Amino acid sequence: MTQAAQTVHDERDPERDLVLERVIDVPPERVWRAWTEPEQLRQWFTPAPWSTAAVDLRPGGIFSVVMCNPEGEEVPQGTGCYLEVVPNRRLVWTGALGAGFRPNKRAEGDLLFTAVISMEPHGSGTKYTAYVIHEDAADAQRHAEMGFHDGWGAALDQLMALVRAG
Amino acid sequence: MTQAAQTVHDERDPERDLVLERVIDVPPERVWRAWTEPEQLRQWFTPAPWSTAAVDLRPGGIFSVVMCNPEGEEVPQGTGCYLEVVPNRRLVWTGALGAGFRPNKRAEGDLLFTAVISMEPHGSGTKYTAYVIHEDAADAQRHAEMGFHDGWGAALDQLMALVRAG
Repeated sequence: MTQAAQTVHDERDPERDLVLERVIDVPPERVWRAWTEPEQLRQWFTPAPWSTAAVDLRPGGIFSVVMCNPEGEEVPQGTGCYLEVVPNRRLVWTGALGAGFRPNKRAEGDLLFTAVISMEPHGSGTKYTAYVIHEDAADAQRHAEMGFHDGWGAALDQLMALVRAG
Repeated sequence: MTQAAQTVHDERDPERDLVLERVIDVPPERVWRAWTEPEQLRQWFTPAPWSTAAVDLRPGGIFSVVMCNPEGEEVPQGTGCYLEVVPNRRLVWTGALGAGFRPNKRAEGDLLFTAVISMEPHGSGTKYTAYVIHEDAADAQRHAEMGFHDGWGAALDQLMALVRAG
C-alpha cells in the first residue's frame, strides 16, 4: 500500500461515485505540477486559452480557474477547497467548502462533489485516478449524464499534452 | 504563534462567524481527550445521560453522538467530518461533509457550519476557543438566535465538570 492508498476515501461506493482511471506515460511528479502550479493548471483545466488560475496549496486553501471569454467577461470554471495535500501522490478537494473550510452556498441545481486525484508510480509513468464522490446516486447519475467520463478524460488529455510539450 | 494559529482558518470574519472563547483551568491534553475519546464525548456533548458516541479521528473520518431517549428511540445529536487533527491543540470539523469527505445532503432549514476547536496552553490551564464558520451572515445570525453562546458555553461547562471528576 502506498501512502496515498491508506485513508478512508478508498471505501468505494459504485452507486454514488464516479471513477476515471488511466495509466499514462508521464511521471507522478509532472502530473502533480500540472495540478498544483497555477501557470500549468490554467492551461489544461479548461479548453479556453485565456484562463487564469490561483492556487493556495494547503488544507483549507482553495484553487480557482477563471476563463476570460471573447467578450472580455470573466467566467469561473471551477473552484475547490483542498482537504488533503500529499505531494506527488494525492490531492483531495471539494466543492462543498470554500476558503478556510467555510461551507459553500449552493445555488439551486448545483452539483457538489469531492474529488480524490491519485498519482501512483507505474513503471516510468503513472496510474492516474480521479475518484469523484457525490452525495447520492442521483447526483452521481446526473454527473455521468453531464459527461463526466468524456469531460474529465478530455481534461486529462490536455494535461498530458501540456506535460509532453513542457 | 503556536502551531494551532498558523492556518488559513484564522482569517476571522465577524459577519459570518461566531466565537466562544474562555480560559479554563484544565490542561489542553484533558480537553483534547474529552473531545476525541468516545466514552468521554458522549458524557458531555449532550446533557442526556444515555448517549453513545463514535470517533474516527483522522481527516475524512467522522464523529457522531446519538442519544437514546426515554422511549428508547435513538436521536442523533450531532455528527461531523474531521478536517484537521492536531493532537492537544486543534480539531477542525464540518457538517458540510460526511464520512470520507462525501458532501452532505442538507435538509431544508439545516444549518451547516465548520467548527475550529483550539486549545492553547495558558498557565496550567487552557485558552479554549470554539470558532464557528457559516456560509453567510444570515446563517450566523440564525445560529446566534438559536442560542449558540449559551448552548456551546453550557456544553463546555459539562466538559469541564467531566474532566474535573475524572
